[in-house]
Amino acid sequence: MQAFGKKRWAIAGGHIPLESNGPEPEFTSRDELAVLNCSDSAARIRMHIHYADRPPVGPYELEIAPRRVRHIRFNDLIFPEALPLDEAFGAVIDADVPVVVQFTRLDGGTRARSAVATAAYAARTSSRRRH
Amino acid sequence: MQAFGKKRWAIAGGHIPLESNGPEPEFTSRDELAVLNCSDSAARIRMHIHYADRPPVGPYELEIAPRRVRHIRFNDLIFPEALPLDEAFGAVIDADVPVVVQFTRLDGGTRARSAVATAAYAARTSSRRRH
Amino acid sequence: MQAFGKKRWAIAGGHIPLESNGPEPEFTSRDELAVLNCSDSAARIRMHIHYADRPPVGPYELEIAPRRVRHIRFNDLIFPEALPLDEAFGAVIDADVPVVVQFTRLDGGTRARSAVATAAYAARTSSRRRH
Amino acid sequence: MQAFGKKRWAIAGGHIPLESNGPEPEFTSRDELAVLNCSDSAARIRMHIHYADRPPVGPYELEIAPRRVRHIRFNDLIFPEALPLDEAFGAVIDADVPVVVQFTRLDGGTRARSAVATAAYAARTSSRRRH
Repeated sequence: MQAFGKKRWAIAGGHIPLESNGPEPEFTSRDELAVLNCSDSAARIRMHIHYADRPPVGPYELEIAPRRVRHIRFNDLIFPEALPLDEAFGAVIDADVPVVVQFTRLDGGTRARSAVATAAYAARTSSRRRH
Repeated sequence: MQAFGKKRWAIAGGHIPLESNGPEPEFTSRDELAVLNCSDSAARIRMHIHYADRPPVGPYELEIAPRRVRHIRFNDLIFPEALPLDEAFGAVIDADVPVVVQFTRLDGGTRARSAVATAAYAARTSSRRRH
Repeated sequence: MQAFGKKRWAIAGGHIPLESNGPEPEFTSRDELAVLNCSDSAARIRMHIHYADRPPVGPYELEIAPRRVRHIRFNDLIFPEALPLDEAFGAVIDADVPVVVQFTRLDGGTRARSAVATAAYAARTSSRRRH
Repeated sequence: MQAFGKKRWAIAGGHIPLESNGPEPEFTSRDELAVLNCSDSAARIRMHIHYADRPPVGPYELEIAPRRVRHIRFNDLIFPEALPLDEAFGAVIDADVPVVVQFTRLDGGTRARSAVATAAYAARTSSRRRH
């Protein structure tokens, strides 16, 4: 299938809750990134995490195989460094082929769980305008 | 009414929870696809499901009558095969007339329910650019 | 302020839950439409509700005063007819000036509440392309 | 990093719930605005709040440092005036550099929490069309 989507995406409202309950790992509080790569090439992703009070950290490097989807928990990212709990963050995602990105939160910190999902912001990159 | 919307949509963050509780079928855990067809023609949809570890499966064929809406549970899809529970998936939806697609999740697996809804990603298809 | 937004919006995933609990009216199960009119003119809205098994119903006529926001519960619409509970619906919203539309659901039918919010789909109307 | 995003954003479905429970301030009912500024310049934001029954209030002035994200609770805004609880509002956000905006709600007013997140509406401003 022909690649489609965008090469740059951004998330402004990231936050990994401090508390968690329920069986692990299904109910761990988490922010998740879902990336769909419909192309016939592997998608190489470089993500930079932005914070409120210190410089951005990155790149976090991820790969999504051709014609596959991958759900990535921000909790699981450890290189170049793990993300702190209970701190606001934003993420900028750059891929070398067009992909589709969705952002999901599962908050397991209270008796009830809450979940949010939203489309990430798809930037109009200069490369997209040129080609 | 004149058709409007897009012919291609995509979802990256699909996941059918494993557990479920509450009365059936209202509170079954589910991911749902909502498709609005405002045109005067039936909309024929071909959907391909993408996974993390194996090739895409499809097409799942669906039809939405003219000037109707249809909510489709991913749990209910059985041909060419049922979707596995508790596994990440993405979906690519191709319609032969423009439609509007929304993605909703109801997670009934815990004492509390959580629900998410988000607009699916509307791709710019080549056919759209040409016409 | 200059008007901005779009003149046509659509929602595919409408559904008013059957059950409700908690104090009225704050915790009544509801689907809500939020419309922001930043222009200096009143926005006249004509909405058509689409169903799974019968022809669309409408127009539902609403007005949003200049430089005001209005949150409208689908439960409260009665003319030309009230919306049925527990039935899938889609909505097409046409405004005579550009507005911004958001869709929110509060599901008060269980011990826990769940809420969803998503941007409505902003159609590219022919009038927008021409001007 | 090159600035990206949009200079104007809007939210139609704002509402700060009346009740709140759980430890403060994590579980206070809140509507939150998340703003990501990837540019190398500070982003100066002027926000106007729109209501159902009275004229818009603003500007609320905010600044996001270069290459930083900021999550802003509507509850915390006090100048030119605090936002009322339990009242519908919309927000128009104007920035002097492109930013990415997301809108999140945490409703802590009941035993269960519910949360919503949605992309704010990204307006096509006249400045963007010109440049």
